[in-house]
Amino acid sequence: MRVIINSGSTEMTKFDKSIDKNLITSKFGRLQRQFYSIRNNKMFELFVISIIIFSALMIGANSYQVSATTYQVLSVLDITITVIFLIEIIIRFIGEPNKKRFFHNAWNVFDTFIVLVSLIPIEDSELAVLGRLVRIFRVLRMVSIIPELRILINSLVKALPQLGYVMLLMFIIFYIYAAVGTTFFAAINPDLWGDIAVSLLTLFRVMTFEDWTDVMYETMTVYSLSWFYYLTFIFFTAFAFLNMVIGIVVNVLEQERQIEADLLKKDSDEPSMKELKQELAEIKALLQK
Amino acid sequence: MRVIINSGSTEMTKFDKSIDKNLITSKFGRLQRQFYSIRNNKMFELFVISIIIFSALMIGANSYQVSATTYQVLSVLDITITVIFLIEIIIRFIGEPNKKRFFHNAWNVFDTFIVLVSLIPIEDSELAVLGRLVRIFRVLRMVSIIPELRILINSLVKALPQLGYVMLLMFIIFYIYAAVGTTFFAAINPDLWGDIAVSLLTLFRVMTFEDWTDVMYETMTVYSLSWFYYLTFIFFTAFAFLNMVIGIVVNVLEQERQIEADLLKKDSDEPSMKELKQELAEIKALLQK
Amino acid sequence: MRVIINSGSTEMTKFDKSIDKNLITSKFGRLQRQFYSIRNNKMFELFVISIIIFSALMIGANSYQVSATTYQVLSVLDITITVIFLIEIIIRFIGEPNKKRFFHNAWNVFDTFIVLVSLIPIEDSELAVLGRLVRIFRVLRMVSIIPELRILINSLVKALPQLGYVMLLMFIIFYIYAAVGTTFFAAINPDLWGDIAVSLLTLFRVMTFEDWTDVMYETMTVYSLSWFYYLTFIFFTAFAFLNMVIGIVVNVLEQERQIEADLLKKDSDEPSMKELKQELAEIKALLQK
Amino acid sequence: MRVIINSGSTEMTKFDKSIDKNLITSKFGRLQRQFYSIRNNKMFELFVISIIIFSALMIGANSYQVSATTYQVLSVLDITITVIFLIEIIIRFIGEPNKKRFFHNAWNVFDTFIVLVSLIPIEDSELAVLGRLVRIFRVLRMVSIIPELRILINSLVKALPQLGYVMLLMFIIFYIYAAVGTTFFAAINPDLWGDIAVSLLTLFRVMTFEDWTDVMYETMTVYSLSWFYYLTFIFFTAFAFLNMVIGIVVNVLEQERQIEADLLKKDSDEPSMKELKQELAEIKALLQK
Repeated sequence: MRVIINSGSTEMTKFDKSIDKNLITSKFGRLQRQFYSIRNNKMFELFVISIIIFSALMIGANSYQVSATTYQVLSVLDITITVIFLIEIIIRFIGEPNKKRFFHNAWNVFDTFIVLVSLIPIEDSELAVLGRLVRIFRVLRMVSIIPELRILINSLVKALPQLGYVMLLMFIIFYIYAAVGTTFFAAINPDLWGDIAVSLLTLFRVMTFEDWTDVMYETMTVYSLSWFYYLTFIFFTAFAFLNMVIGIVVNVLEQERQIEADLLKKDSDEPSMKELKQELAEIKALLQK
Repeated sequence: MRVIINSGSTEMTKFDKSIDKNLITSKFGRLQRQFYSIRNNKMFELFVISIIIFSALMIGANSYQVSATTYQVLSVLDITITVIFLIEIIIRFIGEPNKKRFFHNAWNVFDTFIVLVSLIPIEDSELAVLGRLVRIFRVLRMVSIIPELRILINSLVKALPQLGYVMLLMFIIFYIYAAVGTTFFAAINPDLWGDIAVSLLTLFRVMTFEDWTDVMYETMTVYSLSWFYYLTFIFFTAFAFLNMVIGIVVNVLEQERQIEADLLKKDSDEPSMKELKQELAEIKALLQK
Repeated sequence: MRVIINSGSTEMTKFDKSIDKNLITSKFGRLQRQFYSIRNNKMFELFVISIIIFSALMIGANSYQVSATTYQVLSVLDITITVIFLIEIIIRFIGEPNKKRFFHNAWNVFDTFIVLVSLIPIEDSELAVLGRLVRIFRVLRMVSIIPELRILINSLVKALPQLGYVMLLMFIIFYIYAAVGTTFFAAINPDLWGDIAVSLLTLFRVMTFEDWTDVMYETMTVYSLSWFYYLTFIFFTAFAFLNMVIGIVVNVLEQERQIEADLLKKDSDEPSMKELKQELAEIKALLQK
Repeated sequence: MRVIINSGSTEMTKFDKSIDKNLITSKFGRLQRQFYSIRNNKMFELFVISIIIFSALMIGANSYQVSATTYQVLSVLDITITVIFLIEIIIRFIGEPNKKRFFHNAWNVFDTFIVLVSLIPIEDSELAVLGRLVRIFRVLRMVSIIPELRILINSLVKALPQLGYVMLLMFIIFYIYAAVGTTFFAAINPDLWGDIAVSLLTLFRVMTFEDWTDVMYETMTVYSLSWFYYLTFIFFTAFAFLNMVIGIVVNVLEQERQIEADLLKKDSDEPSMKELKQELAEIKALLQK
């Protein structure tokens, strides 16, 4: 973990360097430098975080029955938050030395999109729901602001492809069992086994052990051997899942060891056995002269 | 994981070599070589995979209520898929340099069986179900086509015997508890404890924590101390299960370390401590002359 | 695992040695030697295992409704099994070179006890249940016969004291929550919170997530903040449980590494760095002469 | 674990030293020394532990319906226990060489607080509940008395900040899903989705798989695609949880290895490769002279 956070700080250093190179001359450059220092200011970050928390609390407050006055206060506060977020994004954008780079970062795009959409005034009840959703997703800005969370999410996303084949295998198991389930049990309970989509959902339910015996006992009244279907399904999915977890643990441990081994190799000025042997060979040559 | 996939690619190389040796002369040999190159073609693999996915989607579509026209279209498509699969198997078989080897591979046998059975025309409603099942199991061909999935399954199957004794122990625990449960609780609820098979199923349900308290509260009305039976059962099975998981994790980590240690030994041209000592002894001998 | 099984085989060797020393002269000694070789015979072991499996199947058969004739057949078979087990124990006992050692082994005591109790003829319905239970526990003889299972059980039992303090901590958490639960919720639902014993059982149910929300929603109607009680309980127990599991994993990995390190030290005839330094010092001394 | 317990014993040694320095002269010093030796006496510790167990049993007994006589006996016993605890705390306090240090230890503060509060005579029914609660928390004194438990709790508390960011991420996931859930499902079932607090509780329930399909099926009657909401929630939380567990395992293994590596470095008098190279360089210099 420490290593990952270090890589985060080196990213910062890169920014500093690119500033030094490009923009010290012009007037706009001075503004940019100023905004860049604001953006990297710890106080500014804390201020934005507290605004995000405040907006989260407002979403929570909105979920309760509120009086008309409170509602008006909340509306005004909402506009204020939107404006603050807009200013913050503008500061970030101007403060960015490399404008193209700004939109290469997915988090910046997400931030900009959320802020722009929440600017649109909404009256229509249809759009009102959308407006509320956008306000809720503003809480996700927490992740884009706090570097540790951003890193955590990135490492989670990076771990996903590793799981690819086990996931595919699991889906094949699910699909085959769902198809078999639909073939045999659709007539017994169409709500649970009516078509392949519903069967997949029912099987997911069985995997989480959620009232799975109710599902089983029902089909056992018709096919008394159908317990075999459920037990094999549970065994297969449990086995695949276990395999996935163990795979991740082993991978993470391997990576940690690799990082450590690399550090050891780089940092140490310890001579290798090969070098020692070389030295010995030279001594021997001296003696045999 | 990487290591396992590497072993997959060496397998390929072996095939290439056996081709070079055996069959360059005859006319059939040329056909075989041609089909072999088709078989190993990435495009051919992708085409077969997409056909399998298409056949899986058709199974899904079949689970919904379909109009008569759609049904006829689906029937024609099904025949087309069967024919494509048949051609594919024939290409594979002719392309295989060593015909005996072909049927030594369990996946090839499975593929051939599934394709041959789906050729049989089915009218009878009894056999219709079987026909549908065979079509569903065609989705499993995904595993036999994609090498990574095949390797994954093989490694899972290899891991099974390791678990043998813990599984046996777990079954003994289940069996004893089921026998005791039947002895005492059969009169209370025959549906759950009527005979040893039903009791085993009920105990499996208790192990998955699925409404286990309902089962317990019922027997506690007669035997108020029967909570002891359930709690000890949960402890024993949880303990055995935990042991099994830890056993697998430790084994996998050991294997990884073994592989790494072997790689280190083989690849490195680093002299051993023993060699260095030998060198020193020689130097000493030179000095003492 | 491999190491543990090895230790099992060394145990065998010890027996062989003790035989060589003590009893080659007398006539009884010859009988003992003969029985000892029977006892260690693989065929004899397989025969006993198949009898145990057969007796397990009979227990299963007994749990179904059987006709009078079948019942009589089963009774005769039961007597046969009991006699076979008696003979087997006698062979084992006579075959044991050191009679005192025989009863120091808990599994031998268990075997003898089970066989002796099943000799008692039972007519009374009260004792009949006891007789059936003893017959069920004969299945456990499987563990005492198969060395791998015996070793597995032993290693599980050895792992228990390690868990001692975490178990104690968990019990303290349970006890405090049960006492608090009884104080507040006894009036709401005496069946779940009536006294401390019932509350402990209810909390175990909550820990397994078995319909725990039903329990919570009921108390929330009176104490609307009681969700805090359940959530903290779940967090504490989950955290303690996780800690326990991680503790076991780390311990097992440590042991494996220790065993490996010891093997490396013992087997290797590689000189240490210290030895090399000593050699160098001697060479230097020779040069400076 | 062994290492941690060792650190506990070094703490003890520190105490012994501080005694030697400060207080051998005065009369009070002699008393203090006497009490200090009582405090560290194994018998005294066992006595206090047995009193705590006895008080725990009394709490249990109180939860059952008791006769008037028993109640009076229990009351007298309760006063006795309180007095014993008071004396014990006084012995501890006087026995402590450094009075300021005494209250720096959170466990001592907890002990003193619990004992002092249980001294207050309670008649009022409102306070009676508080009195009972304080008596229950006396069981926690077990943790403050047994060093191993104290160490276990300390190490658990130290592990918490590590989990900080994953916990925060999980809370953000929960909060966003709760806000979305309230927006859409509040009208369907206000008991489960009425406001943000209730929604959070419902989502925790979904995470524990407790009748989560009942919750889902209900909302699916209105929004038929709401299964997507539940499945993504389960995936996200399961993934974050898995990540947390793996993080802890890796951290614990890393720490163990670090401790071992440090021990190896400190204890060993093995020369480094660098030292050997130095030696070789000197020999070469001697030869080239």
